[in-house]
Amino acid sequence: MDPDDIRPGEVAVDLPDRFDAQVFFIGRIRTPWTRREDCPKNARESDAVCAIEVDERWSEALAGVETCTHLLVLYWMDKAARNLVTQVPRHSGVPRGTFALRSPVRPNPIAASVVRLVERRGRQLSVIGLDCLDGTPLLDIKPYFASTDAMTDAVVGWHANPSS
Amino acid sequence: MDPDDIRPGEVAVDLPDRFDAQVFFIGRIRTPWTRREDCPKNARESDAVCAIEVDERWSEALAGVETCTHLLVLYWMDKAARNLVTQVPRHSGVPRGTFALRSPVRPNPIAASVVRLVERRGRQLSVIGLDCLDGTPLLDIKPYFASTDAMTDAVVGWHANPSS
Repeated sequence: MDPDDIRPGEVAVDLPDRFDAQVFFIGRIRTPWTRREDCPKNARESDAVCAIEVDERWSEALAGVETCTHLLVLYWMDKAARNLVTQVPRHSGVPRGTFALRSPVRPNPIAASVVRLVERRGRQLSVIGLDCLDGTPLLDIKPYFASTDAMTDAVVGWHANPSS
Repeated sequence: MDPDDIRPGEVAVDLPDRFDAQVFFIGRIRTPWTRREDCPKNARESDAVCAIEVDERWSEALAGVETCTHLLVLYWMDKAARNLVTQVPRHSGVPRGTFALRSPVRPNPIAASVVRLVERRGRQLSVIGLDCLDGTPLLDIKPYFASTDAMTDAVVGWHANPSS
């Protein structure tokens, strides 16, 4: 990351000398957004149908996905810095810890989005609920279980009560 | 993976020649379970309080996490094979695609669990809702937003209707 990108109030740390594990990109996400400033601020702001394209190698792994109404999609925010522990989101201007934010800037830039599955055609899934750049690398697709994944009473205190 | 571990009906693929990106382990998860067979089959089966220990380097990134009732925790299932596209879960005996399962066996063995935050003490979080082995490497902690993460009407068809 260009250190000039740090805003007043943000805190960077030295990254570890080495990585601990490695990931495969297993496909790509196709969205209407090619510039970061065009992406919706969060997935609720958009009903755009996006495409998840799974590489041929992994296509058999999609068997049964079409029976799911919702999926949890993990993808790699490959443009994001990894060394900020305190961030100042542009829209709020308030410094917060990285783990209290859904910002792509984090030690491991893995995003997790819940999407609604519209259609599966072979190894392409049409989904609603993504907000990332076109071409974003795909890491994983999981079935979404309401029984363990849906917590309707969850509250993010700093967000619900911004003056706190 | 030992190829002998493949069960009848399972399908393995050749892994890509190279990885595409790398991750840091940012802490460890402490649970009561030291053998895979002791882990709850899913997090709903257990009210055990587990601990998430964040490495000193990243401790500042926890600021604000204590205002969250629920968190999305990503961790690395370091014992899992990565080359199966079709799996036969022991409890069902039915072959299914990897992306239709929450099994730790997947191209990128990244687990995602929603947990309830009981307490934060410095860089240790006490949480309910994990089902992994003691010592599992931590990848990320995110605030859980009911508005985008809770889909109460989600259905996993093959699970809701096992004869399908």
